[in-house]
Amino acid sequence: MKGFAMLGIGKTGWIEKERPACGPLDAICRPIVLAPCTSDVHTVWEGALGDRHDMILGHETVAEVVEVGSLVKDFKPGDKVIVPAITPDWNSIEAQDGYQMHSGGMLAGWKFSNFKDGVFGEFFHVNDADGNLAILPDGMDPVAACMLADMVPTGFHGVELADIQFGDSVVVVGIGPVGLMAVAGAALRGASHIYAVGSRPNCIQIAKEYGATDIIDYHNGDIAEQVIKKTGGKGVDRVVIAGGNVDTFAQAVTMLKPGGRIGNVNYLGEGEFIKIPRIEWGCGMGHKIIAGGLMPGGRLRMEKLASLMSTGRLDAGKLVTHRFEGFDKIEEALMLMKEKPKDLIKPVVVIKW
Amino acid sequence: MKGFAMLGIGKTGWIEKERPACGPLDAICRPIVLAPCTSDVHTVWEGALGDRHDMILGHETVAEVVEVGSLVKDFKPGDKVIVPAITPDWNSIEAQDGYQMHSGGMLAGWKFSNFKDGVFGEFFHVNDADGNLAILPDGMDPVAACMLADMVPTGFHGVELADIQFGDSVVVVGIGPVGLMAVAGAALRGASHIYAVGSRPNCIQIAKEYGATDIIDYHNGDIAEQVIKKTGGKGVDRVVIAGGNVDTFAQAVTMLKPGGRIGNVNYLGEGEFIKIPRIEWGCGMGHKIIAGGLMPGGRLRMEKLASLMSTGRLDAGKLVTHRFEGFDKIEEALMLMKEKPKDLIKPVVVIKW
Amino acid sequence: MKGFAMLGIGKTGWIEKERPACGPLDAICRPIVLAPCTSDVHTVWEGALGDRHDMILGHETVAEVVEVGSLVKDFKPGDKVIVPAITPDWNSIEAQDGYQMHSGGMLAGWKFSNFKDGVFGEFFHVNDADGNLAILPDGMDPVAACMLADMVPTGFHGVELADIQFGDSVVVVGIGPVGLMAVAGAALRGASHIYAVGSRPNCIQIAKEYGATDIIDYHNGDIAEQVIKKTGGKGVDRVVIAGGNVDTFAQAVTMLKPGGRIGNVNYLGEGEFIKIPRIEWGCGMGHKIIAGGLMPGGRLRMEKLASLMSTGRLDAGKLVTHRFEGFDKIEEALMLMKEKPKDLIKPVVVIKW
Amino acid sequence: MKGFAMLGIGKTGWIEKERPACGPLDAICRPIVLAPCTSDVHTVWEGALGDRHDMILGHETVAEVVEVGSLVKDFKPGDKVIVPAITPDWNSIEAQDGYQMHSGGMLAGWKFSNFKDGVFGEFFHVNDADGNLAILPDGMDPVAACMLADMVPTGFHGVELADIQFGDSVVVVGIGPVGLMAVAGAALRGASHIYAVGSRPNCIQIAKEYGATDIIDYHNGDIAEQVIKKTGGKGVDRVVIAGGNVDTFAQAVTMLKPGGRIGNVNYLGEGEFIKIPRIEWGCGMGHKIIAGGLMPGGRLRMEKLASLMSTGRLDAGKLVTHRFEGFDKIEEALMLMKEKPKDLIKPVVVIKW
Repeated sequence: MKGFAMLGIGKTGWIEKERPACGPLDAICRPIVLAPCTSDVHTVWEGALGDRHDMILGHETVAEVVEVGSLVKDFKPGDKVIVPAITPDWNSIEAQDGYQMHSGGMLAGWKFSNFKDGVFGEFFHVNDADGNLAILPDGMDPVAACMLADMVPTGFHGVELADIQFGDSVVVVGIGPVGLMAVAGAALRGASHIYAVGSRPNCIQIAKEYGATDIIDYHNGDIAEQVIKKTGGKGVDRVVIAGGNVDTFAQAVTMLKPGGRIGNVNYLGEGEFIKIPRIEWGCGMGHKIIAGGLMPGGRLRMEKLASLMSTGRLDAGKLVTHRFEGFDKIEEALMLMKEKPKDLIKPVVVIKW
Repeated sequence: MKGFAMLGIGKTGWIEKERPACGPLDAICRPIVLAPCTSDVHTVWEGALGDRHDMILGHETVAEVVEVGSLVKDFKPGDKVIVPAITPDWNSIEAQDGYQMHSGGMLAGWKFSNFKDGVFGEFFHVNDADGNLAILPDGMDPVAACMLADMVPTGFHGVELADIQFGDSVVVVGIGPVGLMAVAGAALRGASHIYAVGSRPNCIQIAKEYGATDIIDYHNGDIAEQVIKKTGGKGVDRVVIAGGNVDTFAQAVTMLKPGGRIGNVNYLGEGEFIKIPRIEWGCGMGHKIIAGGLMPGGRLRMEKLASLMSTGRLDAGKLVTHRFEGFDKIEEALMLMKEKPKDLIKPVVVIKW
Repeated sequence: MKGFAMLGIGKTGWIEKERPACGPLDAICRPIVLAPCTSDVHTVWEGALGDRHDMILGHETVAEVVEVGSLVKDFKPGDKVIVPAITPDWNSIEAQDGYQMHSGGMLAGWKFSNFKDGVFGEFFHVNDADGNLAILPDGMDPVAACMLADMVPTGFHGVELADIQFGDSVVVVGIGPVGLMAVAGAALRGASHIYAVGSRPNCIQIAKEYGATDIIDYHNGDIAEQVIKKTGGKGVDRVVIAGGNVDTFAQAVTMLKPGGRIGNVNYLGEGEFIKIPRIEWGCGMGHKIIAGGLMPGGRLRMEKLASLMSTGRLDAGKLVTHRFEGFDKIEEALMLMKEKPKDLIKPVVVIKW
Repeated sequence: MKGFAMLGIGKTGWIEKERPACGPLDAICRPIVLAPCTSDVHTVWEGALGDRHDMILGHETVAEVVEVGSLVKDFKPGDKVIVPAITPDWNSIEAQDGYQMHSGGMLAGWKFSNFKDGVFGEFFHVNDADGNLAILPDGMDPVAACMLADMVPTGFHGVELADIQFGDSVVVVGIGPVGLMAVAGAALRGASHIYAVGSRPNCIQIAKEYGATDIIDYHNGDIAEQVIKKTGGKGVDRVVIAGGNVDTFAQAVTMLKPGGRIGNVNYLGEGEFIKIPRIEWGCGMGHKIIAGGLMPGGRLRMEKLASLMSTGRLDAGKLVTHRFEGFDKIEEALMLMKEKPKDLIKPVVVIKW
């Protein structure tokens, strides 16, 4: 079978591989909709995961089941499914402890395009099909549903990590696709003021549609100062970090009230340390909790988030700004992600077999 | 001063009282908008609190401060304020323990028209003004804001007690004004399917506008059976009880999944016992948590919920179906509440001094 | 192979069955230590689970692995293991939702001597060996360790459901083996006053050793009244129910402060309803949370609780008052459990193959 | 009246001041037992709070009430009381939000020897007596009780921030008096292995008595490496930081499992940044939560922790290694704290008026 792969750091290309084998609990699927992710870009061109050779990329897809293992009960060939980016080993110690995304080791619930071939192949392998696939609901647009693989659960997890409560004021740093889902998630969790940090006009427009009440543009000065000014010196209850870098945390701590929480879902690709400013963190005593975590995956998570789309609470389809047709367009879509033109939020590739 | 009072069980009337005195931490206010509550009806005609003589009724109001005590720092005469139905003693053991509504004893954070004169007077007394009043935000309609005194915090507390998470399926039993706020709160907290139990056309219409996805009418059979059927036999993740009686809990437990939660905010006025069906409760082992509680009051709560209105997340003004002008219309408004015509959700009295 | 079974309601006896088959994820074990449980008595003589024919009893054991499936990674024949009474399907929707004990349906994580043959056989079958077995730590007495299968996790779960905090006053109703573990767990979770409700001298002695500060004997009058009196009218912060019946909840609610929690781990075998007294429950508004649930099982839970024994925080071995030698003594041990002589807390059967 | 004060950075001495005035909610007390705190040392000789002139030091005391304000209900002259180091304004927005220690601003619940005169005077002032004092239980040694003012609640709060669960493995960094209370608190909260980091023989001995299972000495190499080695490469579930400096967090993050929590209660007096190592923190996605906070104070907290001492769960008196008699010995006791001889854990001054 064909797959679009990382050949080595900085290099991509089409390769031939054997179709993956299906264990007793597994499924083999083929993609219907695919989306490249900024992580794929980091993986290839920044070597974020270290070197990988001939590893098929991709971890965002809606797909069709083509084969299932002998112990799979709830899925069969022909089923259309949402496939989460994170596919845990559910019986692992870590999953039993509530941290399925770290099953088998920190971040090791993330398998596609990390420890094994990803979804940019004619076929791909899903471990524990019953535990990790979710039926695409009747009538749901698979293009919008493809955002459930990573963008929605990651953005929403930022909201969960920040533990937003009714009426909280919230800053969302970064309004790329994950940040926009954090804005939508914050609104859907009962935030009042949502200060969205970003500057691209397209993203600002969508951020407002998802519930941002104020836009903070870093071109206008330090974002912490802007937030503090806008809140009359008080700062905000919660900060979700969905963009920036290791230095963003200093701003986040500064703009946060005592008793506040930071929820980070931004993959920090470089820098040795995240630096927490001592004074602003209350000399260690300010109750400004700093949390950061990989999205939870698996079947239930997909079903729950899909239900928000089927009941009209969330329209994740708005994220999709560019649409390609045909399996061979994966390369073009990924390159677009790499170049990141101003009007891009998220590209998808739609496949007809 | 004049006040509209409970004279004894089953009897109401206008009385003359001395204007209340203002302690060092207190405020004296006069109402701008008043709303009668079903509780007032229970108090007078069902004797729900036991006998009370010449007690001024009412606990829902937006008001103007006319006097403050010597230790009050944040309020002054002339301020327009939202007054919560629950005005705790913040330094009590119970408030320190996180249960401000029970400060001084179970339910004793509820003072107006319970332990002391309520707000249906020309003037009324507020304990701990700094801790219990909130400034009416500029430009906010005081009629809508009056719903913040009791309807919004009570309905939203049902959602908090049920601990609704992203994508949860929820039943809201009862779609009077509190139940409607529970529907709005559930949607605003990330529920997917919201099954609203009620039958009055006016309420059904508003329930849908607030986010109900399905209406369950008890005229069509047992509500638990209807919910179980609608959910393919699985039941729901959460139930908020905002209506019904002691028997409603048996239905709630029946329609709930293991691991689910019931949040009750319905004042249970009669019946010796709430009966939990043993088998459906998993013989005591089903992890179906039963919680019920009086709304949290105080200043911060008012500010947080008001911020949801000023940012457009919530339009509580929709609850107001009947509007009276003039202090002397309190009686008429209360009687309307007692008679509960089909198209009534919530009446208010608007006062110009 | 031989097994001691429920032949039908009210009847037990030895039967011959085929040794169970081992699926790819499973293990086949043989018991080293066995303990009968009050549940076995309820199952046989009260028909608590309905009729069962020729079902091997028992769900408390420390065992030796004799065979593992092809996909099992962490266990091998010869390993000595602690086997939890609850062995969930870890990839189920319920386990993903944090309720592993209800995997596949309410209470369905409980399989041994419920949906399949229990551990009172020469061999028994364990689903998902990697997810559900725990290595018996070097040097740990298997007799004491056998208490980890059900008594320790059930008693401790009562403490978790009641959510005991530093300095809380706690009532533990019932001081059979589960209640005694609730006493030990409450002390180990930071409770201050622990009021243990019971009357058998042997149990009272052990309750005090495990941390009970006061003994409440129902022979001396209503237990709620006694507790209220002992606490100067205030009641307690938490109640763990590990004995009694459906009527115990009325007492528990009565003796509980507003904002308190009840954690039930007593299997309620009869009665149509649990009755919650309306007034004492604050007319639905007292924030007295009622929770009840089956113990969590699985590997991590066993490892964590075993670590409390290996570090000397807990000596569960004290529960064992009667000790039998030889597989054929299971019947005698179970009958002892049924007769429940005054000095009995927990019998075990030690087996040498 | 006389008081022992900070005269300026680096300077202390006895001064004369007017006896403080008693507002309507307040109390005036005089100390029975006093303890200097490392914070006093930081305040004076490191200028940790900035410059202060003629500010009476001290915030740890058991005292006698000599005067109460007109609105005080529960205390009267002659009462022996435990006085918490943190005395919040209970009606503040922050206290209403659950963060009483930050009432009025970050850390501003800490008033004694910070924003106002401390307890090292012949008399001192307590704001909100009903909300902030606790009766010394009959028969409780006031010397041991004096540890309830700061040492016990601070150490125990580290345990709360780290959210220790049954069977968790825990590192406690630092075994001065606060760290020792963290060890005791961890054991009392259900930790299994407790790795205590320290080297002074006296402290090691007491740490073991309080429940430490292993001692980690930084003289033997990097503490993170030692912990990782001792745990077979797995790391621990929780870390409580009660000593060290801004660099300690890098070690804490390194030795922590994904899904773990850090609870800091060490006042960080210098350094611009706390540095979180990016890779070990899972590139922002490892679910290693970092929390740090000032102890909660107030009456309920004192009562709850005192109940642990009166029921024998905790013997905080062991911390007291040096005992002085007489008000004029405060200076000597503070200097001892400054010099920190090897055998010192905590000195107290006992006063007879």
